Amino acid sequence: MRVAIPVFPRFTSLDIIGPYQVLVNLPDVEVVLVAESTGIVTDDRGLIKLSVDATFDDVDHADVLVVPGGPGSRVHGDMPEMLAWIQHIHASTTWTTSVCTGSLLLGAAGLLDGLTATTHFSAVRELQAWGATYVPDRVVTQGKIITAAGVSSGIDMALTLAALLTDQVTAEAIQLLIEYDPQPPFAGGSVASASEGALAKVRARLGSGWEPYGVT
Amino acid sequence: MRVAIPVFPRFTSLDIIGPYQVLVNLPDVEVVLVAESTGIVTDDRGLIKLSVDATFDDVDHADVLVVPGGPGSRVHGDMPEMLAWIQHIHASTTWTTSVCTGSLLLGAAGLLDGLTATTHFSAVRELQAWGATYVPDRVVTQGKIITAAGVSSGIDMALTLAALLTDQVTAEAIQLLIEYDPQPPFAGGSVASASEGALAKVRARLGSGWEPYGVT
Repeated sequence: MRVAIPVFPRFTSLDIIGPYQVLVNLPDVEVVLVAESTGIVTDDRGLIKLSVDATFDDVDHADVLVVPGGPGSRVHGDMPEMLAWIQHIHASTTWTTSVCTGSLLLGAAGLLDGLTATTHFSAVRELQAWGATYVPDRVVTQGKIITAAGVSSGIDMALTLAALLTDQVTAEAIQLLIEYDPQPPFAGGSVASASEGALAKVRARLGSGWEPYGVT
Repeated sequence: MRVAIPVFPRFTSLDIIGPYQVLVNLPDVEVVLVAESTGIVTDDRGLIKLSVDATFDDVDHADVLVVPGGPGSRVHGDMPEMLAWIQHIHASTTWTTSVCTGSLLLGAAGLLDGLTATTHFSAVRELQAWGATYVPDRVVTQGKIITAAGVSSGIDMALTLAALLTDQVTAEAIQLLIEYDPQPPFAGGSVASASEGALAKVRARLGSGWEPYGVT
């Protein structure tokens, strides 16, 4: 089974490594990072530099596609080769998935029109612009497309996917191997549950115009 | 504020990227990956290849040290330079931390003797061999040393640390930015809560000799 993960400049690191750390523990799996050209691709902070060995031309099918997000995913117009590759690979997948704003790349590739999907809470309008109906869930499955909410949600998505690809006990064993027994120190990891103080800081960080979905 | 993360062959990717994705969102932070030499360092599956720009000689102090784990952390005898660097950096830190079997590197550096600590559930005896008292908690703080349990626990540890370094609202805002509102699809992410089926698979994977801590 091959899992392919496209990598592009200004990806968000955990969007890739969360699902990777789950899926790489599947039996008989090959995980491949793929980019426009081989060499170093740098994350959204300029600090994590992934060396990628395969190009879009090298990988012409995958059983599972995991599309990460990050600021780079919002400039899809600059990456026509990747969008064409996503469309092509999607035709061969059993599951096509995204994490965070990776859903915007699925949208830009025309894969979400008329479907329900989720994304990072800051990208709801952009997602809707591709014809998707936003659902504020952590993991949304419609047909063979699974979209996950922001950044860390890729771990939950990948465990769900692991069970679909194998069986529940195998997915549980992976969850145990990575000791995924989360104990966040605070409440408020979602917009719906966040404190006013945290929302104010995030609003300042994301800049003018962003309001939590559902707030008018 | 400088956060330093040593990287060594056969690290576990999420041990690094989990805490990284939290701590890089702190205000005025510099996160630096450090290795014995510059260039590519490859993870425990041979798939994630990090390009590292700084050597142990280049980094002589840090406010926060995050030591990741992975199979490579169990061959500490092969990495005397890194152990010496950990000892040296620890002298200047406000917080010295580990994820997963990174605790074995803290132990090998002589930093855990007589302290309580945690680690990946498969490494309890190795941790105890360094004079530490194992506590089966997800995050254990004693003095300025914070150890975390396996792999994914580094996210919880880093959020706790983020609050210690700033304030709770700032940590909550980071938790919201990465949408850390975990919803594992299954129970059983810890040895204490795992199903018999998952434990059997993990036991087979880890090989003879491993039994869950507390089981005789």
